[in-house]
Amino acid sequence: MTYARPPATGRALRLHMNENTAGCSPAVVRTLAAMTPQEIASYPDYGPITARCDDLFGVPEGWVQLTNGLDEGLHAVSQSMPPAFQALVVEPAFEMYAIGVEAAGGTVTHVPPEPDFRFPIEAVLRWSTPAPRVIFLTDPNNPTGLSLPAGAVEQIAGAAPDALVVVDEAYADFSGRSSLPLLDRFRNLVVGRTFAKGHGLAGLRIGALVGHPDTLAPIQRQLPPYSVNACAIRALDVALEDADYLRRRVAEAAESKALVYDACRRLGLTCWPSDANFVLVRIGPDAPAIVAELAAQDIVIRDRSTQPGCAGCVRFTAMVVEHTRRCLVALEAALASRRD
Amino acid sequence: MTYARPPATGRALRLHMNENTAGCSPAVVRTLAAMTPQEIASYPDYGPITARCDDLFGVPEGWVQLTNGLDEGLHAVSQSMPPAFQALVVEPAFEMYAIGVEAAGGTVTHVPPEPDFRFPIEAVLRWSTPAPRVIFLTDPNNPTGLSLPAGAVEQIAGAAPDALVVVDEAYADFSGRSSLPLLDRFRNLVVGRTFAKGHGLAGLRIGALVGHPDTLAPIQRQLPPYSVNACAIRALDVALEDADYLRRRVAEAAESKALVYDACRRLGLTCWPSDANFVLVRIGPDAPAIVAELAAQDIVIRDRSTQPGCAGCVRFTAMVVEHTRRCLVALEAALASRRD
Repeated sequence: MTYARPPATGRALRLHMNENTAGCSPAVVRTLAAMTPQEIASYPDYGPITARCDDLFGVPEGWVQLTNGLDEGLHAVSQSMPPAFQALVVEPAFEMYAIGVEAAGGTVTHVPPEPDFRFPIEAVLRWSTPAPRVIFLTDPNNPTGLSLPAGAVEQIAGAAPDALVVVDEAYADFSGRSSLPLLDRFRNLVVGRTFAKGHGLAGLRIGALVGHPDTLAPIQRQLPPYSVNACAIRALDVALEDADYLRRRVAEAAESKALVYDACRRLGLTCWPSDANFVLVRIGPDAPAIVAELAAQDIVIRDRSTQPGCAGCVRFTAMVVEHTRRCLVALEAALASRRD
Repeated sequence: MTYARPPATGRALRLHMNENTAGCSPAVVRTLAAMTPQEIASYPDYGPITARCDDLFGVPEGWVQLTNGLDEGLHAVSQSMPPAFQALVVEPAFEMYAIGVEAAGGTVTHVPPEPDFRFPIEAVLRWSTPAPRVIFLTDPNNPTGLSLPAGAVEQIAGAAPDALVVVDEAYADFSGRSSLPLLDRFRNLVVGRTFAKGHGLAGLRIGALVGHPDTLAPIQRQLPPYSVNACAIRALDVALEDADYLRRRVAEAAESKALVYDACRRLGLTCWPSDANFVLVRIGPDAPAIVAELAAQDIVIRDRSTQPGCAGCVRFTAMVVEHTRRCLVALEAALASRRD
């Protein structure tokens, strides 16, 4: 199993990668314009920006490891596990967990989704193995946008003290929820964050793993010492200053999601209330054809119909309202032409 | 064994990291200033820049894997090896090879240096093990700056068809030599390159592994799909245009190295003729104290006296002539004060 990067999109409207299609804060653009030749040519210093993230995440010094996007952190988690480890992935899930586990020589147990994507807490709690093990959770989920039920992380981390429990919070800026406050109580818990989504820094690659220093230590051994680049560090510093930018993007996503829900109601399509910056919509067996039809109109959305529980589903970004409107108009027309 | 990042240097003269202390091409600075919010917020497309590197390295499509600095590539090599693999490291060597091997669960055999750092080709050719194995070579070497003897790579790759042979050419822009033309004949060979040094892009993190697609495939599985950032891609594109910038930096390094050799002759110090952008100088048992003394004057050089064969040695960057002069004046004064 390998991750197939979606093809390049040229000038098309990119609604397939859960990106912040509004872009990043103008302050980030200005700060990149101020990078000096010496900064560009020097290995970065992670001290100040890591201290800033300690504050942001409300943890003591030593609890934050910045990573080259959260992807690097997720890969490093698997690479840090002993040989022949086992991993639990609750489907449908971000494909990268399973890819990283298999690349690191581990074995994945996939928990299939329950009807309507109800979180299968019983199955997760039931899972046991004498092997070293890791449990991947996503909050809110990708591709459904659904948050984990209240209390699920504590229940799982508490019931599986032998397992490393990773909570991927890539979209937490949109949900406003986090398991960070649980880190104090659960040494086996690691929270993954990224600045790719809410802050719009996907192209710069910066994320973080947060957890007890003893828990992070074996993961940190898998990371090259200079994996985060100088532009990302400078950018994050000013992006965190611009709290208003993030607030407006979160509000914009909420407005866009409401438009999607309205359209789905009107069109009789099932969708799920998303706590992220995208929505999963069930459009039926024509999903792949409709995705191709929109792509031909330079609107790129993601066919998710082969993911477990996602038959007939597509996923698209709901950020910039004008983009969402354009996508919904095209989607409605494509569906109408098929019903005629 | 972990890599201890040298402490932050503030505004001091950084001569300890083999960086391009002249900075990067002004064209790179201009291109970062032109980054758009959408580029910053989007996952990058590696197609065009990879094609460009195919041309640069003179290999067919599919033979280049860009990496988040060459460090990521070196880590991924070790991570791609089967459990209980063995690695050969010819000392003195860049510490990262051994760190990556051990982090990935492998075992390192260290070949000690011969007198005057003569390359121990016999010992390398003699090394055998029934385990899966990788041989790390560096051309030119870090910390000595010495190139491998002519024919060594072919001899080793030819004699060890069961081993993966990695030639780290981080400083090849300065040596003007490369094992890239051997890739056609040796499927077990991978050449590592970086744009950190000659092109001065260390802060942006971009390097490459070059080899046959079948040889790269297991290594690529260890890499997250978006490990190289958008700034690095844009920067490399224009840096490669500015061939004159690279040419001038290489000439500048040659001029600086000549100054170091002259000073060593005058001061009665042993140094080695370097094909890289730094020089290793034997200053004797006071090396750590002298490194500290220069640091107190805001000139940061690297104590290498604990590396095999490097007793009493320091290493410093030889790029910008004025920096080299400043370093040599301070070094001479520090030595003189101890001889009084």
